[in-house]
Amino acid sequence: MYEVELKLRADHDDARERLAALDAEELGDVAQADTYYDAPHRDFAETDEALRIRRERRTDAVADGDAAETAKVTYKGPLVENESKTREEFETGVDDGETMSSVFDGLGFEPAAVVEKQREYFRVDEYTVVLDDVAGLGEFVEIEREAKESELEAVRDGAVAVLRELGLDPDEQIRTSYLGLLFEKRE
Amino acid sequence: MYEVELKLRADHDDARERLAALDAEELGDVAQADTYYDAPHRDFAETDEALRIRRERRTDAVADGDAAETAKVTYKGPLVENESKTREEFETGVDDGETMSSVFDGLGFEPAAVVEKQREYFRVDEYTVVLDDVAGLGEFVEIEREAKESELEAVRDGAVAVLRELGLDPDEQIRTSYLGLLFEKRE
Repeated sequence: MYEVELKLRADHDDARERLAALDAEELGDVAQADTYYDAPHRDFAETDEALRIRRERRTDAVADGDAAETAKVTYKGPLVENESKTREEFETGVDDGETMSSVFDGLGFEPAAVVEKQREYFRVDEYTVVLDDVAGLGEFVEIEREAKESELEAVRDGAVAVLRELGLDPDEQIRTSYLGLLFEKRE
Repeated sequence: MYEVELKLRADHDDARERLAALDAEELGDVAQADTYYDAPHRDFAETDEALRIRRERRTDAVADGDAAETAKVTYKGPLVENESKTREEFETGVDDGETMSSVFDGLGFEPAAVVEKQREYFRVDEYTVVLDDVAGLGEFVEIEREAKESELEAVRDGAVAVLRELGLDPDEQIRTSYLGLLFEKRE
């Protein structure tokens, strides 16, 4: 499966009005904190690898008093095939994100950047629309859907149609990751 | 809390007879596979660190058909204080041990050794008696109990008494870890 994902800067108040007019289903809110690590023995920027611990907690009405935090570790290997951006990716949940980060600290991996965001999820047709409020970067909208290779073009056209329904301009699409945007801002 | 632990080679058939005579409570059986990793940037044998993934699954009557495997990651830091063998240790459960090992493989850590054992747990007084059948090493008995610093001597004396009740000789105690014994055997 492939992940079709369009992302652009967009004011959330406007987007919420459009989503309400479309009767979009609200799927919930989460707070995410992604810590990206530098390796002690390789330059991940050069090898194009990534090691991340993501901590997430529900922040909507469904969340109970002490909303349980979940955490997972993700390793993204170097690009195997540049054209299709194919790479190995391994991800598994961990019981305790804090302890996992202590393991990496002990091994000599150092936190390089933290991306914190508040995410609101909506359903529009077969697409997931995400309102991302990213610390230090501002407000974004993402349109996501999984697709088989044979469906890619149709799913991408559909995503562009959803963007237009939300009053957004597909030409303003941003391909840089939030981590990349934060690094650009630092420079 | 401290962990008092005595270990020695012992025939399991004899030990089981003694345990039955003592009316020892059976606590269950597990299969454990511990993979220890070498680091790409440090010699753990020199720094006295350890990185381990432990996979465990119940193998007794309580275990259902496809007995769920649990896994955890443990990092043991260098000795902080040699006298008391104090070191930092971080351990957390992971959802999928196989994926976690792929993460470490991707990062350049290599499996250095695997210690596989079948463990049967029994309760004798306040002590846990473990019959360990270790692949490549044979049969061992361990007596374990947690203790506060002030209780250490009394708890250790109690463990020796349990050993004697099992017909074992406390002077045959082995202080080397299973991993260490496997490495000695290789040499």
